[in-house]
Amino acid sequence: MTKLNRQWIYARPVTGELAMENFAYRQVPVPVPGQGQVLVRNRLVSLDPANRTYFVMQNYRPKLELGDVMASFAIGEVIESRDRRFKTGDLIHADLGWQDYAILNSYERSEYVYKCTQGHSDEDLIGVLGVTGLTAYFGLQEVGKLQAGETVVVGGATGACGVIIGQLAKLAGCRVIGFGGGPDKCQWLVDEIGFDAAIDYKGNDPAGDLAHICPEGVDFFSDAVGGIVTQSTLPLMKKNARWYHYGNVSTYDRATTDSPVDLGEALTATLRNICEERNLRPRFLLVFDYYCQRKSAEKVLAGLLKSGQLKAPTTIVDGFEKLPETLIHGTLQGNRYGKLNVRLRR
Amino acid sequence: MTKLNRQWIYARPVTGELAMENFAYRQVPVPVPGQGQVLVRNRLVSLDPANRTYFVMQNYRPKLELGDVMASFAIGEVIESRDRRFKTGDLIHADLGWQDYAILNSYERSEYVYKCTQGHSDEDLIGVLGVTGLTAYFGLQEVGKLQAGETVVVGGATGACGVIIGQLAKLAGCRVIGFGGGPDKCQWLVDEIGFDAAIDYKGNDPAGDLAHICPEGVDFFSDAVGGIVTQSTLPLMKKNARWYHYGNVSTYDRATTDSPVDLGEALTATLRNICEERNLRPRFLLVFDYYCQRKSAEKVLAGLLKSGQLKAPTTIVDGFEKLPETLIHGTLQGNRYGKLNVRLRR
Repeated sequence: MTKLNRQWIYARPVTGELAMENFAYRQVPVPVPGQGQVLVRNRLVSLDPANRTYFVMQNYRPKLELGDVMASFAIGEVIESRDRRFKTGDLIHADLGWQDYAILNSYERSEYVYKCTQGHSDEDLIGVLGVTGLTAYFGLQEVGKLQAGETVVVGGATGACGVIIGQLAKLAGCRVIGFGGGPDKCQWLVDEIGFDAAIDYKGNDPAGDLAHICPEGVDFFSDAVGGIVTQSTLPLMKKNARWYHYGNVSTYDRATTDSPVDLGEALTATLRNICEERNLRPRFLLVFDYYCQRKSAEKVLAGLLKSGQLKAPTTIVDGFEKLPETLIHGTLQGNRYGKLNVRLRR
Repeated sequence: MTKLNRQWIYARPVTGELAMENFAYRQVPVPVPGQGQVLVRNRLVSLDPANRTYFVMQNYRPKLELGDVMASFAIGEVIESRDRRFKTGDLIHADLGWQDYAILNSYERSEYVYKCTQGHSDEDLIGVLGVTGLTAYFGLQEVGKLQAGETVVVGGATGACGVIIGQLAKLAGCRVIGFGGGPDKCQWLVDEIGFDAAIDYKGNDPAGDLAHICPEGVDFFSDAVGGIVTQSTLPLMKKNARWYHYGNVSTYDRATTDSPVDLGEALTATLRNICEERNLRPRFLLVFDYYCQRKSAEKVLAGLLKSGQLKAPTTIVDGFEKLPETLIHGTLQGNRYGKLNVRLRR
């Protein structure tokens, strides 16, 4: 009997909020690797807000086209290799997508396709030691440049990246305030993760709440969300404060090919004036541009994990069939703590 | 009037020696960059033995298919950018191929597509500071590990990479012998480049000539050619000598999809025994795997160029129409000194 490869396909155009009907399930034969190719069995699929952007724009990967297997970074195991770089049994990180088996090519980017360091769990490899953790690490290194005693505001603080940024800022001796969605998450940020305070952005007056907590202003803003979070924080930022803008999650699920919604939407005329006067500029960086430093960053983060100074909270959903609903409800609607993954097999 | 883009296309299957008939010329409209894309005007096209492998195998790029624009690394200028990484006027290194204008995508490998350091000539950027120079540099760093006083043999010494390896080995205090094709090239290696001696591999007894010159054996062999060059050198190598095998040019022009000729062909039973007894193993490395160190290597090489300690001989052929014949006669048949390029415009 031929082994089958389950796949979730991008089946109907995304024109608004992502929905189940945008995906179709199919089974195809497991592909056979040709010269220069590797066959990988997928174990753990990373689900992230960035997945939603794949439908509307070309960024660090080509825009998804109808009929494509849905794309996602993942951890998998090499089953058969005809690429000098890998051998059977190697655990690798790559965009394996929403399928059991993927073919990788010898010419794929070394920033995405690499052999994992041994001795870590799949969820740490795809999270705190992967794209999301490194987005936190390099953002602080390049934009944050934190000093002890500074005040840091973290948007999307319960997300995979924000939760790491907040903890690293605490380790740097900063006072750290995080935005979370709802009282449970806010309490979790303070009690479990060690934030100094948390603001419910779904509350009545998040801007007032934040102003109350930060009477002396904000030195660094880690901005993943846009919308009300950005609008609440900008007025409190000091002159020349640093602003790391690595996402705009509040708008993603409205983005279309014709109008990929951007940060500009959140910036009223008043806020633009504030930015002008105080020399506040959002700084974006593409984490892959820093991948020459990946291994040294990984070493630092792994050391902090091991010593218990850093927590890498993770939500794992089991089962291939759960992929679409987990992206929709978990990632885009924020129903998760920390890094969100779907496990296909152990 | 629409501006036109001249292209050389891979038009007829390569089944033996590369010939003009494998290529077809055409003109198409200049493409318009979409979101995430860059339009680049090509200035200087690199021609290298490795181009011949593109027809028969997937390596650091997909195998060429009929109808593809012929692939080659090149230096070009950004005309229009819709990719955050680049702006109009940037000089970049990329696989622009045999055409006047190329479109690059935001997701292409940063090892291939990068902004060039300012203040260097196009030919240095594509040669001694590009793939060929770095193949020399990283090969010596990773495999050569040269000590002053050692004996070094360089195959393909008049080629883009060999000529740099030989000079760097001289700078490391080694005695350096190069293989060249014919007496003129051998004389050039000694008189112009500063090799200690050169052997004509087209001569009557290259193995005997080399043995005569290296009575105490060989410590490091830089092997780009295979065939008679490898067969002449291996018997002289000391136990545990280092062997950098970065190409097999003597066989390339016979390679087909079904039989990509490899080094094995050059290794007789006697030579295999020698390798076994003396622990000699060819070491290959993919230069792109070392590109995190590209800028520091570039700095070293540029410093040596500037101080006159390193020469980067280059043959430049002018004119788009010369591309196929220059690859065939210049690169594959060895009719060039140093790095070979075709200039499309200044």
